[in-house]
Amino acid sequence: MNITFLGTGAGKPSLQRNVTSNVLDLTKERQEMWLFDCGEATSHQIQRLQRKESKEQSPLPNITLPKISKIFITHLHGDHIFGLFGFLTSRSMSGSKKPLTLYGPKGIKKILDVVIETTESFMMFPFEIIELTANDDPSQPFLVFEDETFKVTAIELQHRVQSFAYRIEEKDSIGKLDVNALHQIGVHDHAIYQQLKDQQIVTLDNGKILQPKDYLKDPQKGKTVVIFGDTYPCKNAVTIAQNADFILHEATYSQEFEVLALERAHSTTLQTATTAKNANVKKLYFTHISSRYFHKEDQDKLIFECRTIFPESYITQDLMRIEI
Amino acid sequence: MNITFLGTGAGKPSLQRNVTSNVLDLTKERQEMWLFDCGEATSHQIQRLQRKESKEQSPLPNITLPKISKIFITHLHGDHIFGLFGFLTSRSMSGSKKPLTLYGPKGIKKILDVVIETTESFMMFPFEIIELTANDDPSQPFLVFEDETFKVTAIELQHRVQSFAYRIEEKDSIGKLDVNALHQIGVHDHAIYQQLKDQQIVTLDNGKILQPKDYLKDPQKGKTVVIFGDTYPCKNAVTIAQNADFILHEATYSQEFEVLALERAHSTTLQTATTAKNANVKKLYFTHISSRYFHKEDQDKLIFECRTIFPESYITQDLMRIEI
Repeated sequence: MNITFLGTGAGKPSLQRNVTSNVLDLTKERQEMWLFDCGEATSHQIQRLQRKESKEQSPLPNITLPKISKIFITHLHGDHIFGLFGFLTSRSMSGSKKPLTLYGPKGIKKILDVVIETTESFMMFPFEIIELTANDDPSQPFLVFEDETFKVTAIELQHRVQSFAYRIEEKDSIGKLDVNALHQIGVHDHAIYQQLKDQQIVTLDNGKILQPKDYLKDPQKGKTVVIFGDTYPCKNAVTIAQNADFILHEATYSQEFEVLALERAHSTTLQTATTAKNANVKKLYFTHISSRYFHKEDQDKLIFECRTIFPESYITQDLMRIEI
Repeated sequence: MNITFLGTGAGKPSLQRNVTSNVLDLTKERQEMWLFDCGEATSHQIQRLQRKESKEQSPLPNITLPKISKIFITHLHGDHIFGLFGFLTSRSMSGSKKPLTLYGPKGIKKILDVVIETTESFMMFPFEIIELTANDDPSQPFLVFEDETFKVTAIELQHRVQSFAYRIEEKDSIGKLDVNALHQIGVHDHAIYQQLKDQQIVTLDNGKILQPKDYLKDPQKGKTVVIFGDTYPCKNAVTIAQNADFILHEATYSQEFEVLALERAHSTTLQTATTAKNANVKKLYFTHISSRYFHKEDQDKLIFECRTIFPESYITQDLMRIEI
């Protein structure tokens, strides 16, 4: 899987960083892409990414609107959702009939219903909106989505409006069958292959006993990614990020603006790095960066601050794509 | 006055043409700028224009969000309004306290109220929304706004949803006083200047009679601009555009797509040029151009088609600024 940062700025767009949006590309895992937040001009950023990757002859799967099968909204602030209307109508005009499910805080349905109805827009594809209902115990993650290969949970963070983090867990895959080894002992029967995959011991006609563990390769550990909404540091952030391979967390300000950050319910570099450290994650990418950090040296300072606490800290840039 | 085309494409954004938005710069006339329609990423386009004009060292007034004092919405299709939410919140975040009035079809208030309330956005400036109420006689323009220097009227067009054209009339200014001529005959009294400006005949102490017409330069004829919402050709379009100096009208398709244009309630090149001709306007700029006309030769064909009917036809491009 890989992740693309479409917009990495805070509050309002700048020429350097658009407002928030990220695409988790699960083409390899499940032939789908998932969008996390959709600030204004997200579909414009996708067009720009297509042009960039086409010029670079990137081997990665092209990101297109119809390929997005799920949208997860972290919170209802405008810089995280004002691109939804254009995204949905453009996806509809593209002629795609592929279903789309949107998950988000309570209120998102009312906004979309009023805008779609009043502008006489229409969705040409099956479109479902699922509003999140938190646990009775708010300190524990709750289930958002689960199937055979992935599980998504969420937890509430601390911001000026209800804001969530999403934890995306790829399930461990069972080991692949070592067909070559079976061929070598003269076994070509697909019914036997299936029994071994189902962890059943098989006795051949010649009396030989086959143990599944001898013919199944090691299972593959699934990846875990956590994508945060805006927040100031809180216990729930550490809970949801526990042992993740990769987290994407805001760091709107450098440490010197700690007071301002708290006032606005955002995080600083050191706070974000501390969450990553306490949650024992493998990698932190930080985003939602204030436009005051325009120059490279200012951005280097943000990275430096994070790394004093958590060495595996990296800054995001618009249209950057990272293998997880 | 001058006009800037921020977005000149139809339906959905492309890398070449963004969705609809235009700025009428009335800095010289009244220290204001007026925005007509606000497709998604309008505020992004304003940032791009600022960068472009700064590089070119343009002498024209910089377009900024706080300078926009009025927004006129032609109709409620998404490609004409989905940039409003970001425009308003970014203008608010800029700290401007300058009032803003928005005019638009019925329904725009409901959309903005729900979006602003549910996202907990706030406007830091006085913000008024005025929904248009058409005449009992729909074939006649109705008054939208009037003061000493400008008058704006509107008329309903023919589209899939209610769509308006706005006629912006600068009032004729009375002639300027020829102060030099008065100095030459020894008149320096400001009370006399005012009497002449008020068209009063003045008798000097020495018995000399001053006729206002001898000391007032020729009055300046005000300019008239008409900006159209999406429409197929109709009588009202000709009515509202009558004798205008400049009209901005959609021409989504070349003539070969006449049937498709009618189906979608849009205009072709020839239809738009015919409206301009029948209304006896001075100049036609056409906009809302389908993304199928990507190449220069295709766009040249659109211009050529228009000019077979109306020679003073010009195509718009994003970020182009035209003196009216």
